[in-house]
Amino acid sequence: MPFITVKVLEGKTEDQKRKLVEKVTEAVCESFDVDPSVVFIFIEDLEKNNYGKKGKLFSDL
Amino acid sequence: MPFITVKVLEGKTEDQKRKLVEKVTEAVCESFDVDPSVVFIFIEDLEKNNYGKKGKLFSDL
Amino acid sequence: MPFITVKVLEGKTEDQKRKLVEKVTEAVCESFDVDPSVVFIFIEDLEKNNYGKKGKLFSDL
Amino acid sequence: MPFITVKVLEGKTEDQKRKLVEKVTEAVCESFDVDPSVVFIFIEDLEKNNYGKKGKLFSDL
Amino acid sequence: MPFITVKVLEGKTEDQKRKLVEKVTEAVCESFDVDPSVVFIFIEDLEKNNYGKKGKLFSDL
Amino acid sequence: MPFITVKVLEGKTEDQKRKLVEKVTEAVCESFDVDPSVVFIFIEDLEKNNYGKKGKLFSDL
Repeated sequence: MPFITVKVLEGKTEDQKRKLVEKVTEAVCESFDVDPSVVFIFIEDLEKNNYGKKGKLFSDL
Repeated sequence: MPFITVKVLEGKTEDQKRKLVEKVTEAVCESFDVDPSVVFIFIEDLEKNNYGKKGKLFSDL
Repeated sequence: MPFITVKVLEGKTEDQKRKLVEKVTEAVCESFDVDPSVVFIFIEDLEKNNYGKKGKLFSDL
Repeated sequence: MPFITVKVLEGKTEDQKRKLVEKVTEAVCESFDVDPSVVFIFIEDLEKNNYGKKGKLFSDL
Repeated sequence: MPFITVKVLEGKTEDQKRKLVEKVTEAVCESFDVDPSVVFIFIEDLEKNNYGKKGKLFSDL
Repeated sequence: MPFITVKVLEGKTEDQKRKLVEKVTEAVCESFDVDPSVVFIFIEDLEKNNYGKKGKLFSDL
């Protein structure tokens, strides 16, 4: 606890995700006064043709 | 806001998803009196061997 | 199948939700060629002080 | 109803998932006094480089 | 890991939930060969007027 | 995009949540090189008797 899910458009590199996990863990620990060992982060890559915005598939925008 | 997640069995075509995004956005805007620009839709394809129903994997039914 | 989750800011009336369920079910059935009996919809009310946008709590915007 | 989502690290075999669906359905039916026909289970495989723990990507641990 | 979310209609007692956590943890450990200490379960109570089935709010059925 | 859900045990103050939204938004923007205007954060408070760990309800631990 806490458990964080990050839904993001496909295409982020492993380095960007590495940095995200590090930085978000820091942010959560600082804000909620918890230890990194209890912070879990799940990243979900969203394909462009599985994401809709303004009534359109993102792949069509 | 609002954010809509649609979990569906794998196999829907891009055209079906295109129509879904259009129609669901309309439905949400009409019901909740919001603009299409604030409606976000995430589609999640569920593999048959990752979906359980009546105690069985769907791929075994 | 399919299973739809709608995350929306707190405050929508029961009538609006009634209309949403009706209209979204229609939209999903039409787009994915499925029967209403297999469409499940979950609505999640999001409190203003549990929703963050542009780095701020929505209740502070 | 009920709807169960199981997020697990990638790599579980189809047999393990078959057993999971069977056993978890039994557990839910026994605890909540419901019939297997209303229990739905979604399994989500989590890639090692999409899962963060202790501030690190799991693939780096 | 694994992380289990159970969405269920409001009204289950604390005893039923206690039994659910115990039984589902057992089922997951047995199926996936993991230790209870790494199994996390989140229960989400769904209000009848926030749940739609067959195009209707459950509270209207 | 991206969309972040933070599931945390009930009891965090509004100030802690304010700080979380600010810090997590910064962390995401820095890591994924996106603007704060496209970062959405949802906080979910988890009741102690709706959270299971090591086969037990958290309220029983």
